[in-house]
Amino acid sequence: MTDKPVTAALLIVGNEILSGRTQDTNLKHLAERLGEIGIRLVEARVIPDIADVITGTVKELSARVDYLFTTGGIGPTHDDITADCVAAAFDRAIDIHPEARARLERHYETSEHDLNEARLRMARIPDGAELIDNPVSAAPGFRLENVYVMAGVPRIMAAMLDHVIPTLKGGRRIESATVRCDLPEGTVAAGLRRIAERHPGLDIGSYPKYGSGRFELSVVLRGDDPEDLAAAASEVERLIRELGAEPERL
Amino acid sequence: MTDKPVTAALLIVGNEILSGRTQDTNLKHLAERLGEIGIRLVEARVIPDIADVITGTVKELSARVDYLFTTGGIGPTHDDITADCVAAAFDRAIDIHPEARARLERHYETSEHDLNEARLRMARIPDGAELIDNPVSAAPGFRLENVYVMAGVPRIMAAMLDHVIPTLKGGRRIESATVRCDLPEGTVAAGLRRIAERHPGLDIGSYPKYGSGRFELSVVLRGDDPEDLAAAASEVERLIRELGAEPERL
Repeated sequence: MTDKPVTAALLIVGNEILSGRTQDTNLKHLAERLGEIGIRLVEARVIPDIADVITGTVKELSARVDYLFTTGGIGPTHDDITADCVAAAFDRAIDIHPEARARLERHYETSEHDLNEARLRMARIPDGAELIDNPVSAAPGFRLENVYVMAGVPRIMAAMLDHVIPTLKGGRRIESATVRCDLPEGTVAAGLRRIAERHPGLDIGSYPKYGSGRFELSVVLRGDDPEDLAAAASEVERLIRELGAEPERL
Repeated sequence: MTDKPVTAALLIVGNEILSGRTQDTNLKHLAERLGEIGIRLVEARVIPDIADVITGTVKELSARVDYLFTTGGIGPTHDDITADCVAAAFDRAIDIHPEARARLERHYETSEHDLNEARLRMARIPDGAELIDNPVSAAPGFRLENVYVMAGVPRIMAAMLDHVIPTLKGGRRIESATVRCDLPEGTVAAGLRRIAERHPGLDIGSYPKYGSGRFELSVVLRGDDPEDLAAAASEVERLIRELGAEPERL
């Protein structure tokens, strides 16, 4: 536990996200899991499968946050180049890792498919990296310095993250409180601003939902001081009542 | 029409995305709409509601792509600071825009709510910007230089984008072809690599789906030359047949 905020960034590698073919869900999952242990996701980037871009972005982001996570680009095909790019970002050699190869061998022993050359590429791990278990399809992710390289397939990414989370050093847990009401955003805005000014340590946002035919507004308060959070949430409830509506605390 | 690729980036402004509270869907929608007119989304970033970060990122990305889109942070509350940050990025003054104010006045005339000071903030538009219509809730977005500032609420964002799309200069349309089969990725990888090498102008990716109990792999080919695309897609079908499976062209 430390008092300095612990920060993370996510690098999503994948043309399929940028083309709109695939809806990313790894960002939300990672953000939630990190939030539980007090790590703040401060940036996420989606970039294409281009080696220079991946290497440059890994360098830039890994220098700026405590933990950098990547998803995507570690499969067996020609466009899976994330491992090589992360190695390049830290000037490390990359080669077949004996333990990664052993895991793939065990996996394909009982499979109708063989460990061919393409699949063996998934055992290429930068020098000095630690493997991240993949209980779904064996091919491991890895950690190199503060960079955690994970699969893009959400089920595999989530399984890898299960193994990573206990190894991270979290910070003060960020708690949140949500107060819902049927007022439009512009009606609560002035009062919310005053509450936000009284509680500078909190992050207070309001999120309207459209389409239900009536106004629905969620005021979300987030911060690492539970007393401050509770006090501010009560002030939001009072504000909503003063404005003639009924707050609902979620 | 131009032969040089036309590029775009998306800047998603919002603590609610980075905290995992809200699942972004604007990226996928924007990517699809831009793809239809031959504009390639080459990067997307999610950043927090912090003024320096927003201003700096707008400067950086707008210099690098043909079109920069932003979503989020243009509502009536204290954390809605995108308009001010975009003005700062281009050293422009920002003030109440007469036409934006007129639109809000008309909207609130027939509303049970009034155009209070908080709502009037939504008429703050940088000097020299053009308004982007908002048929859902009146408060406009705007274009300043090559930056298109839109709402974060997906329904409003989509409505604004409908107005923006016809004003953009597209490039050669990117077509795609998908061939599905029940082979695992590692089995097709070597053949796919050879096809990709024979068609350097195409972007060829393979995307496995897990969890259905059997393998399901989509090979997606993308490019702006329809003949090249059709030839490569036929080669992928032939590869899959040679490997003993039945290709399904989507």
